[in-house]
Amino acid sequence: MEKIVSLCKRRGYLFQSSEIYGGIQGFWDYGPLGVELKRNLKDAWWHDMISGHNELVKPESAPRAFEMVGLDSTIIMHPQVWKCSGHYDLFHDHMVDCRESKKRYRFDQIRGRWVEYQDKKVFVTTMAEAEQELDEVRRRGMKFFKLRNKDADKITVGNESLTLDKLDSTENVLAPDAKSLDTLTEPREFNLMFKTTLGALGGEDDTTFLRPETAQGIFVNFKNVLDSSRVGLPFGIGQVGKSFRNEITPRNFTFRSREFEQMEIEFFCHPDQSQEWYRYWRDRRLAWYKELGLSDESLIMREHHQEELAHYSVGTADIEYAFPFLPEGEYGELEGIAHRGDFDLRSHMEGKLDPSTRPMQVELGEDGKPKYRGSGRDLTYRDEATNEKFVPHVVEPSAGADRGALAFLCEAYTEDEAPDENGKMQTRTVMKLHPRLAPIKAAVFPLVKKDGMPEVAHEIYGELKRHMNVFYDEKGAVGRRYRRQDEAGTPYCITVDTDTLTDRTVTIRDRDTLEQTRVKIDDVVADLRTRING
Amino acid sequence: MEKIVSLCKRRGYLFQSSEIYGGIQGFWDYGPLGVELKRNLKDAWWHDMISGHNELVKPESAPRAFEMVGLDSTIIMHPQVWKCSGHYDLFHDHMVDCRESKKRYRFDQIRGRWVEYQDKKVFVTTMAEAEQELDEVRRRGMKFFKLRNKDADKITVGNESLTLDKLDSTENVLAPDAKSLDTLTEPREFNLMFKTTLGALGGEDDTTFLRPETAQGIFVNFKNVLDSSRVGLPFGIGQVGKSFRNEITPRNFTFRSREFEQMEIEFFCHPDQSQEWYRYWRDRRLAWYKELGLSDESLIMREHHQEELAHYSVGTADIEYAFPFLPEGEYGELEGIAHRGDFDLRSHMEGKLDPSTRPMQVELGEDGKPKYRGSGRDLTYRDEATNEKFVPHVVEPSAGADRGALAFLCEAYTEDEAPDENGKMQTRTVMKLHPRLAPIKAAVFPLVKKDGMPEVAHEIYGELKRHMNVFYDEKGAVGRRYRRQDEAGTPYCITVDTDTLTDRTVTIRDRDTLEQTRVKIDDVVADLRTRING
Repeated sequence: MEKIVSLCKRRGYLFQSSEIYGGIQGFWDYGPLGVELKRNLKDAWWHDMISGHNELVKPESAPRAFEMVGLDSTIIMHPQVWKCSGHYDLFHDHMVDCRESKKRYRFDQIRGRWVEYQDKKVFVTTMAEAEQELDEVRRRGMKFFKLRNKDADKITVGNESLTLDKLDSTENVLAPDAKSLDTLTEPREFNLMFKTTLGALGGEDDTTFLRPETAQGIFVNFKNVLDSSRVGLPFGIGQVGKSFRNEITPRNFTFRSREFEQMEIEFFCHPDQSQEWYRYWRDRRLAWYKELGLSDESLIMREHHQEELAHYSVGTADIEYAFPFLPEGEYGELEGIAHRGDFDLRSHMEGKLDPSTRPMQVELGEDGKPKYRGSGRDLTYRDEATNEKFVPHVVEPSAGADRGALAFLCEAYTEDEAPDENGKMQTRTVMKLHPRLAPIKAAVFPLVKKDGMPEVAHEIYGELKRHMNVFYDEKGAVGRRYRRQDEAGTPYCITVDTDTLTDRTVTIRDRDTLEQTRVKIDDVVADLRTRING
Repeated sequence: MEKIVSLCKRRGYLFQSSEIYGGIQGFWDYGPLGVELKRNLKDAWWHDMISGHNELVKPESAPRAFEMVGLDSTIIMHPQVWKCSGHYDLFHDHMVDCRESKKRYRFDQIRGRWVEYQDKKVFVTTMAEAEQELDEVRRRGMKFFKLRNKDADKITVGNESLTLDKLDSTENVLAPDAKSLDTLTEPREFNLMFKTTLGALGGEDDTTFLRPETAQGIFVNFKNVLDSSRVGLPFGIGQVGKSFRNEITPRNFTFRSREFEQMEIEFFCHPDQSQEWYRYWRDRRLAWYKELGLSDESLIMREHHQEELAHYSVGTADIEYAFPFLPEGEYGELEGIAHRGDFDLRSHMEGKLDPSTRPMQVELGEDGKPKYRGSGRDLTYRDEATNEKFVPHVVEPSAGADRGALAFLCEAYTEDEAPDENGKMQTRTVMKLHPRLAPIKAAVFPLVKKDGMPEVAHEIYGELKRHMNVFYDEKGAVGRRYRRQDEAGTPYCITVDTDTLTDRTVTIRDRDTLEQTRVKIDDVVADLRTRING
């Protein structure tokens, strides 16, 4: 992993944000190569999921053909959006710090037992893994949060199973990893959403949030899209854009950062078909990562257990990747595919629903009125053919663009043996990025800087530049130029040599196979297009 | 303008953000057509300025050939970035409100005279235009702010020119548009940058800001880009991304919004050449808007007067467009091209410079020390050929993507006469967007829904979808289908008719000329590519 991080900085993939001022934790900038990689990844997603989607052909594994459209909503939205979506409550935690262990816990997750100790009642906590637990929760976006460790409320002593208690104050408490009593601070409010204030006056009413996901921008525009496009169910709305989470412990390079980019689809369908659509999207999204080069062995699909799911959900699955910074056998989430039922649309209509009720009811405040008022707008769908009116169910494939980019970088990093400029086998570092993702598609070299070779190379470079990102290099031995491009992930190198001057052909060298093919100059654009897009 | 706004909503170009919750002032979402338009505009900029730039050919009007690379930095950066850049001070105003006129003024801009009135000294203000003045300042991004009205400190009474006074309190003041005394509130702090807090604790030290421009992300990465790419001066770094300004009065549709997207270039060059580069970029950027379809008559280049410029700047120009919501003869800014000297790089090295000093010195605080400490990093450039070491000068072409999209929408909106399905001339609404910008490049129609025409149309649609965003429509009379595409700005309609079934040709209808050409099915992709990209 260290090698990858170092290559990323050295070659201009990724820099720490505000590095000259000592950096800022959890924020990363994409350099000249990185920005092209990320653009290519996002464009591939947009093309494959939205603009290139063929609505007339039923995919083999889908219940029927369907439409896809795009959207671009703002990062700052009306605060009520986050109250009805559930993020305001869910992301609004009370945290305690342990002065001894320097660990931080969610107050309401601490469990333990009251015991007698030196004539005093002392609360002994048992959740030494509270911190990991919390991270796990954050990681999953929390929408369907249920404690993973179902036995967190119980402890087994011998053959006995004791029920654990919750904490109600921080006095007389032995913290999970502490050796002395009373090391916990008072609970402090912590909101995982970044807060900001609109307008000049800055009262509580003007407080709003940076979105923690792009999905809600789609839900609140559901009716606008229906009314302005001629789409009918089933259909999907896709969006690419920045989201923000005030992570407590950003880490693992760009894997968990506070500002990140998402590629999200909300797919709206008839409730009766939602299970089939869930399976379709889960499988299609996994296949997409494989098509772009992630290996079978590094990817797993983790289906959530039935008891982890909200009762209205027929399934949630994570596509996870074996990032090299994780311990052997562990995986990190690239994308979650969730069946969300009608939870979101109904919450935006009626007010935030309480997922623990069956059928789901609007969550009530202490005064018996809805805790958060919905928009009151009719977000139902009327099927023109059957005249049936219903709230569509939603399947949500939600991908992280930064995590995707990082996984493709990790997968691409390879050290192999290749002949150097003198034909001697040497270790080479090569980024085996899929040609669609590679920042630079081809490099153009004149073999030597004379005999008119640079002029022909200039001409080829100029023509290619109109169609794709290419690079020109005439400095140093050609073998060394190859190595530089291997490290940048450039899949093809085009060399102008003596033969070119007589027969107008060049060699195209393949980064991975090292095979060299002679191609006519006039065919280079078409040849590369086929190699890149298949 | 109302027609444009209405079409934008009806056809899915633009929606008010969070509309179902009553909307949020100054925020706009892009619908299915809008997101494609804006993507096309940003991609055209990225291609023409960055990835498609030919570094080997000297543009006719440029001093020499040059390199361009891209970057993608975060929205949230280290707060010191904004202190050294000057935004923290400049965007940090004290405002007063008038309880009578409901107008808001910048406290330090109010001017007037003390007069005797009923045995009392009363301050009579004269800046009735303070509010407009302020807007003007906001609009220009404020970097080179100087009062436009140079005589704001003076007033002419008869033949006499009186110097005006500044206000030091709001007591005994007659406000600009008020009829009674003492209608001004106490000055209140107002920051044009959106503030937010990092991490859990939320102390003052953790306060940071959403970027009000993408430019500073480029300056702080200048050295990283130099070290990781093989670029040499002169070269440019381009970036596309969201910026945020807490505008007091967002208005005019997407023209002045609080969340907006910028396309910025920082072009680094030798100080001796910066004047030539300034002229080159100013002219090239104007030409770009014209190439994509803005008319000569609607565009002006407004050069700032010498006295408006900071002393270190050789020029600043605005490219302005005659938006239809402005009064006749007025223009709104699309892009500013500014010569910024070495102000930014030196400020990030040494600490915020004071632009009023000559030569520029670091601005000192009350304790005589630098008011804001720079990074201390060496951001100079050493020319390998001459061994000269210097801080590069910067030319900054800074464009607004939302303003651009709005200008292209306004320019495209046309009502003309065209024959309807019965050949009768009718008024049609047509969005004459440049083919590169049009959300849908082509629509495919079977003339009728039988005789195998839909099947051939499906085939063409499927092939085209792999390469560009196209639309399929078989509903209603073909004339009405044309009209729908005209309104969506689709430049080409491809119709499958009876002849197609025998000779495998289709008609391609041009949106603007209404001309129909017969083209072989196998040539359609290439034909459209040529029409779109020239």
